[in-house]
Amino acid sequence: MGFRQRLDILREVLAAEGLDGLVVSRPENRYYLSGYTAEDYDLVESSGILFVGLRRALLATDGRYAEQALEEAQRCEVYVYGPGEGWLEEVLSNLDTKRLGFEALHLTYGRFLKISQALENMGSGGELAPTDNLIENLRAIKGAGEIEAIRASLALTERVMARLRGELSGGLTETDAARLVETLMREEGATRAAFPPIVASGTRSSQPHAGPTDSPIQEATPVVVDIGAKLNRYCSDMARTFYLGTPPDRFKRVYAAVREAQVAATGAVRPGVTGREVDSVTRGVLESRGFGEYFSHSTGHGVGLNVHEQPTLGPKSETVLAPGMVVTVEPGVYLPGEFGVRLENMVLVTEDRVETLNHLEDFYEY
Amino acid sequence: MGFRQRLDILREVLAAEGLDGLVVSRPENRYYLSGYTAEDYDLVESSGILFVGLRRALLATDGRYAEQALEEAQRCEVYVYGPGEGWLEEVLSNLDTKRLGFEALHLTYGRFLKISQALENMGSGGELAPTDNLIENLRAIKGAGEIEAIRASLALTERVMARLRGELSGGLTETDAARLVETLMREEGATRAAFPPIVASGTRSSQPHAGPTDSPIQEATPVVVDIGAKLNRYCSDMARTFYLGTPPDRFKRVYAAVREAQVAATGAVRPGVTGREVDSVTRGVLESRGFGEYFSHSTGHGVGLNVHEQPTLGPKSETVLAPGMVVTVEPGVYLPGEFGVRLENMVLVTEDRVETLNHLEDFYEY
Repeated sequence: MGFRQRLDILREVLAAEGLDGLVVSRPENRYYLSGYTAEDYDLVESSGILFVGLRRALLATDGRYAEQALEEAQRCEVYVYGPGEGWLEEVLSNLDTKRLGFEALHLTYGRFLKISQALENMGSGGELAPTDNLIENLRAIKGAGEIEAIRASLALTERVMARLRGELSGGLTETDAARLVETLMREEGATRAAFPPIVASGTRSSQPHAGPTDSPIQEATPVVVDIGAKLNRYCSDMARTFYLGTPPDRFKRVYAAVREAQVAATGAVRPGVTGREVDSVTRGVLESRGFGEYFSHSTGHGVGLNVHEQPTLGPKSETVLAPGMVVTVEPGVYLPGEFGVRLENMVLVTEDRVETLNHLEDFYEY
Repeated sequence: MGFRQRLDILREVLAAEGLDGLVVSRPENRYYLSGYTAEDYDLVESSGILFVGLRRALLATDGRYAEQALEEAQRCEVYVYGPGEGWLEEVLSNLDTKRLGFEALHLTYGRFLKISQALENMGSGGELAPTDNLIENLRAIKGAGEIEAIRASLALTERVMARLRGELSGGLTETDAARLVETLMREEGATRAAFPPIVASGTRSSQPHAGPTDSPIQEATPVVVDIGAKLNRYCSDMARTFYLGTPPDRFKRVYAAVREAQVAATGAVRPGVTGREVDSVTRGVLESRGFGEYFSHSTGHGVGLNVHEQPTLGPKSETVLAPGMVVTVEPGVYLPGEFGVRLENMVLVTEDRVETLNHLEDFYEY
């Protein structure tokens, strides 16, 4: 799908919401609609804001990004602002909207205030309206090109996972292993890691988002490896749990429960079911095995331009799964002070069922 | 300075602003006050919010980060929230503030709304007040440990710059060179690059923030290399412009002007002058050489936990420089469609003057 078509679909969504424009500040949404690839330096520094109206789309940026914006955002008009005041009024009067949406989950309060003051200064009666996930919901259903990009990104991550596995027993520290992941990703052609690699060994594996430490990875312990790459702007995300040495029965029991939950939840994914329903399958298996209270996150999330995106497979998710959605299925059990196990695959919702996008068969059969 | 002392100083600042608490959502600020090192995935996904009151400091996070928060944020109480409602009310009633500040440049509108609704639900008359840069202004003045961390980060980047320079003539593409920078940084021990490396050759060097392309770096062209590392959480940032082959006179003239501007601006840095005054020195030199209109950004910015932070050395900056501030001095000239030159050092404002933190003497003398 081209950028023009995406803009047209968004305009239909806006009309249905009673809006005649949208301020797009989230970088991945900005790219999705315009093709402009600049990233934001950090959470506070923006490399541009896309203003979508019913007929016009203006990408406002500063001088540092002007050439890039003109080159990439072919379907948009590029407006280059300087350090002075008044540019927002100019952009907004070009847009001429009465009810302008903004991304409440992303726009900072400071930028919200500037835009609403500009509207007030103009005295044209235009108002701002918070919106949630309008573009994210469009992005949840991937086009053919996006699915190919995600497959390629995940295949790369699987190659890295396979190469890493061979290195884990050598007395590497967690930090070394995490760095190795990033080096291997680059070697395999990734733009970069989609998120800081998680390599959590021993008792630290009980922290779902543990940062790597300088502790050497010991023999006779589990290691949770959760990694993902970015390739051609699309993310991948997968996790495996390895045991270095001969696993004790308790590890085997936990692992078998997590794997069983993953297989069951994957089997529950299909068009028409809700995220909540898939999540309840995971929870049901883990509860029946006595580990229900040790599963502290959701079953899964969408993956695309962001590593975490719509839809969510969680206890509160009423999103109905539809063909073209790509989600993770990642049950985990975390026993505080003891150890944790997480297994994460990516799956594609197909016309009639589900396709597991992972091909690396590195699961233990306990 | 310890985390407790930083909290105490912040409380004095809050009192002076008529506030009795602060919602700290920006991750680097959260770390600066608490020691909690988790990063946010993006603006939409937070790994925790720090609520600072006059007596208590509560770090609220979800189950995935609970162990890490307890381990790292020793001076704070850790509050672990679940997916349900009501936790904000609980945290806020523990804090018991009447006028609670928040970071307007970082807090999203959505979170602002949730917090203000929670205050309303409580009916205790507490209100929210936007603040700008309260913690960033404290962070602008670095302690001895921070300065050491920045020196180490910059020394690492200089080693990478020196190693990269030797590779630039081999027909590498810009993308390959940028990847090489990240590999070399890891080899030298960096956590990661502080920002996507800029390697802009030929006419692309006229874009201050050009992303690397798959074009091979040609002989007989300039190459702007702008790179920085993150090491022990502190950033570095430097740029050099190399010419591959024998430079034409026009390049020499531009380069000499930029270097002259850099030397003059560095000489102007000292305690008591404003950011604006330093910036005007840069602009004065470039204007006198006929390139004033081709300098499209500010002279410099602070560097620390963020790669761009307070203070700014720009046309509108009234910040008075003080000992302990670390800033870049980075004039540039960008001739559209032709080429660009940027030279960037980091300097430390000392008790009586300035110390250039860079030691790599890779400047041309034209």
